[in-house]
Amino acid sequence: MSANFACPIPIDEYPYVLLAHGGGGRLTHALIEKMFAPTFGDDGPERRHDGASLTIGGARLAFTTDSYIVDPLFFPGGNIGSLAVTGTVNDLAMCGARPLYLSVGMIVEEGLPMDTLWRVTREMKLAADAANVTIVTGDTKVVDRGKGDGLFVNTAGIGVRETGADISPSAVRPGDVVLLSGDIGRHGMAIMAVREGLEFETTIESDCAPLADVVLALLNAGIDVHCLRDLTRGGLSSALVEIAESADVHIGVREAGIPVLEDVRGACEILGLDPMYVANEGRFIAFVRHDDAAAALDIMSRHSVGGSPARIGEVTDRHRGLVTVVGQIGAERVLDMLSGEQLPRIC
Amino acid sequence: MSANFACPIPIDEYPYVLLAHGGGGRLTHALIEKMFAPTFGDDGPERRHDGASLTIGGARLAFTTDSYIVDPLFFPGGNIGSLAVTGTVNDLAMCGARPLYLSVGMIVEEGLPMDTLWRVTREMKLAADAANVTIVTGDTKVVDRGKGDGLFVNTAGIGVRETGADISPSAVRPGDVVLLSGDIGRHGMAIMAVREGLEFETTIESDCAPLADVVLALLNAGIDVHCLRDLTRGGLSSALVEIAESADVHIGVREAGIPVLEDVRGACEILGLDPMYVANEGRFIAFVRHDDAAAALDIMSRHSVGGSPARIGEVTDRHRGLVTVVGQIGAERVLDMLSGEQLPRIC
Repeated sequence: MSANFACPIPIDEYPYVLLAHGGGGRLTHALIEKMFAPTFGDDGPERRHDGASLTIGGARLAFTTDSYIVDPLFFPGGNIGSLAVTGTVNDLAMCGARPLYLSVGMIVEEGLPMDTLWRVTREMKLAADAANVTIVTGDTKVVDRGKGDGLFVNTAGIGVRETGADISPSAVRPGDVVLLSGDIGRHGMAIMAVREGLEFETTIESDCAPLADVVLALLNAGIDVHCLRDLTRGGLSSALVEIAESADVHIGVREAGIPVLEDVRGACEILGLDPMYVANEGRFIAFVRHDDAAAALDIMSRHSVGGSPARIGEVTDRHRGLVTVVGQIGAERVLDMLSGEQLPRIC
Repeated sequence: MSANFACPIPIDEYPYVLLAHGGGGRLTHALIEKMFAPTFGDDGPERRHDGASLTIGGARLAFTTDSYIVDPLFFPGGNIGSLAVTGTVNDLAMCGARPLYLSVGMIVEEGLPMDTLWRVTREMKLAADAANVTIVTGDTKVVDRGKGDGLFVNTAGIGVRETGADISPSAVRPGDVVLLSGDIGRHGMAIMAVREGLEFETTIESDCAPLADVVLALLNAGIDVHCLRDLTRGGLSSALVEIAESADVHIGVREAGIPVLEDVRGACEILGLDPMYVANEGRFIAFVRHDDAAAALDIMSRHSVGGSPARIGEVTDRHRGLVTVVGQIGAERVLDMLSGEQLPRIC
């Protein structure tokens, strides 16, 4: 533990926690890098990974956790239960692990309809079955009315790393190719459309889906996967910037190559949002060796979970720590992580 | 999953979740037995254990989770951070496992002073060091003002079961002796005294303490430990009743043998509470073979965490599924689990 006992987040700058500290962007990362990682002793680039890699008694494991505070609890394409199972399954997959077991911690607000708790419980079981994981332990707490918001769910997960692959931001190298597993922005816009009462020709459904099958297919085919990252809070941009900073490389992407559904683009325009920053729950990026890119894309297409994968960019050493994007009209700009909070309570 | 898609908690009886559903007593157990266990597929007596026992790649593990919603966040003898670490460490210990790794999920209410988050973070690190565990992964979410209550913390933990001991309610046998690790009721009364503004000659401090060392000492000494249970929500009574029901045995205890500090007894009397139902965070009961009882008590005394262990009762087959207590004046009564909610937000 650091010998410095003063709060490491400058108090005069941020005396109180803001919504943006949980948004997955710049302020979330300041919390992790300045407060949690130095205190808990995780001081390397691995701290920006989706989970921890452990070895216990010869077993190579991955371990991760996420809490879910999504509002509303049910939305097109998913609900807090399916999200809580899928999100943690996906974090394990991003460590290159086969997800096996989950824990569930529910924090219920007094007065939640019992039937809502039951529907969420059932949805968790269905999502666990779909992802081939077992919910093995749990806990339920109830807070007094007005001190919660219906239901918050935490899941933690254990997976086994069956291959020897070293998947982490620090394995990313100039020359790597960046692959995206499908169109972006659906999850965030599905929730915002419900919250804002927006109507489109078709309902935007969350992309929420388990990603372990496609990741294990890549690894088992011998693809040299250097890093994986699912695109949740903070969206594609924040994930790319995180990895560029951790790996100290430049990532160049082409906006024209990044698939976005028409309805999602329309909803983003109405709300003044950039799909590059909108949360997803069933999309990931893979950094693979250049020579493996075509084979990897082929495997990702065959194991698609409802979106067309695309090659969106390359890793170089041109501007270390930066992500640049060539826009639709050809101009290049620097991408930053999400700053502030665009879509609170999205997951 | 059950083919029955109707909510298994009778809706006309409990249409809404009550505080008592999270109190660790009868209603919590109805939720577990009627809703969670049948849905998630954990249908045996093991579901009433403090964690799950898993074997992955030859490694014998334990896995558990708890969320912490204690109010206030800081109290004499502890805080939500030390509680969240210690509570999960203790649940692993109750599975006979050596606690190794923890995850931390924080749900912060917008507006929490940053310094409070920092103090809790530091306390978690200190508690982790004291318990010889490492916090390896985490997550932070922020909910809008008025939709939380300062800070909720979830921890999940992984431990390794180094001995072959089968520790579970189903291993409890008539003839076993019940040992209690120390005086009861401190944690609950420490918090209630702060909340109610009660003053005593000395401040009641929570008994919050890690229990893995004493448990591992018992196991490594070859004590035939049949079941362990830490006495958290619902107190000693609820733990005893749970085990009697799961193991289908009778447990007889003597009230005079159960240590309670004078100040704790006084606070309980003022508030009309029975110490047998008050929460603890550093106390456990051990069910051991009759012949091992003296040696076990000796080990528990040498590894005491601030309380004097005592032999409080025996397992018989006299009234299966029941716990009876011989009171101070010699009359015997049947103990039930906590019904309703005595001390909300105690952990």
